[in-house]
Amino acid sequence: MTPRGLHIQTRDEPGVLHQLTGEIAAADANVVTVETGATHQGVTNLYFEIDGADVDALAAQLRRQPYVVSCSEPRPMERIFGSRLIVIGGGAQVAAVASGAVQEADRHNIRGERISVDTIPLVGEAEIAEAVRAVPRLPRAKALVLAGSLMGGEIADAVREVQAQGIPVISLNQVGSVTQTADLVVSDPLQAGVMAVMAIARTARFDLSRVRGQSL
Amino acid sequence: MTPRGLHIQTRDEPGVLHQLTGEIAAADANVVTVETGATHQGVTNLYFEIDGADVDALAAQLRRQPYVVSCSEPRPMERIFGSRLIVIGGGAQVAAVASGAVQEADRHNIRGERISVDTIPLVGEAEIAEAVRAVPRLPRAKALVLAGSLMGGEIADAVREVQAQGIPVISLNQVGSVTQTADLVVSDPLQAGVMAVMAIARTARFDLSRVRGQSL
Repeated sequence: MTPRGLHIQTRDEPGVLHQLTGEIAAADANVVTVETGATHQGVTNLYFEIDGADVDALAAQLRRQPYVVSCSEPRPMERIFGSRLIVIGGGAQVAAVASGAVQEADRHNIRGERISVDTIPLVGEAEIAEAVRAVPRLPRAKALVLAGSLMGGEIADAVREVQAQGIPVISLNQVGSVTQTADLVVSDPLQAGVMAVMAIARTARFDLSRVRGQSL
Repeated sequence: MTPRGLHIQTRDEPGVLHQLTGEIAAADANVVTVETGATHQGVTNLYFEIDGADVDALAAQLRRQPYVVSCSEPRPMERIFGSRLIVIGGGAQVAAVASGAVQEADRHNIRGERISVDTIPLVGEAEIAEAVRAVPRLPRAKALVLAGSLMGGEIADAVREVQAQGIPVISLNQVGSVTQTADLVVSDPLQAGVMAVMAIARTARFDLSRVRGQSL
């Protein structure tokens, strides 16, 4: 069953999340996803994806709560921003990887897919390792590209941790031990972005597991 | 007070979110942010930001719960992926805007800031309007760039809705009524990406409110 989206605007008050999850549990619904969005002028945007219940009845029940300002039923985020490719790295290369990935995602999305390319420019072993480790905590993150010239040590440890959580990692061909750990190593940054999008696209005939450990 | 991050890996079971928020409420803590990350082999990544309580004691209490697999205290996401610039549009322009924004974010992040550039390539009035309306539901989204050649109608309505929630909108100079609604209109896509990052950067001396309605 496809989860249903619920966009709930609430008063920005303590305990609201617990009250909301209580109403959802009382309706025998299951929270698949939750994200906290913008707070503006005392109103907070909360977004849920729910399955296992009559979502229309749940939405009507939520609208009766005094802390709920509004409740609507948008399509799930998977249908809007879709699968996320995360790009981490620095300098000229990170922009080139992002550009290749965005152009490839455009070609898939125009055929009805939804792939986002989300980029954080970063330098420094500790900084990059911290960001790599945070990728599994991001909603809808499906793959990671490391776009730099020198990455190893703690970053390679972090790469192994996210791979163990089912997130494949593509690396530019660079100095350092990350290239020995990555699922795929690509020399050209545009190509790295393109192939990373192909790896998470449903409309591409590219299976990363069949080229694992290769270097292009 | 700066919120504290909590990364909780839980068993992927119904009701876990409600039980967790119950423990947090019982500790008199307030949930500032929550995001659902990857689920892999029956384990779900949940990320919270909490204030108003002894987070170390709360983490110890959470580790005692049978549905909690692990609980760690990473730095808040604002310190890792930081503020998010959202780029929506199609074709050559969306990649050019993303490239300009990523290069500018690199220059700020290298001085200690954290700005991400998150791009969804999209075409179509209904599709783009839907994505624009979803921006306030995204965690840490601070500004939006519309990178296309023809945007108006329902997209302009959606732009007004997100502006009313405190999110500024920069548009490429293009055909359609979006340019009359945007906070700033920029002809060059690289420049549009650069200025959008400057608008949300703490290290830039650029205040979008002082140029509102201008066209470059």
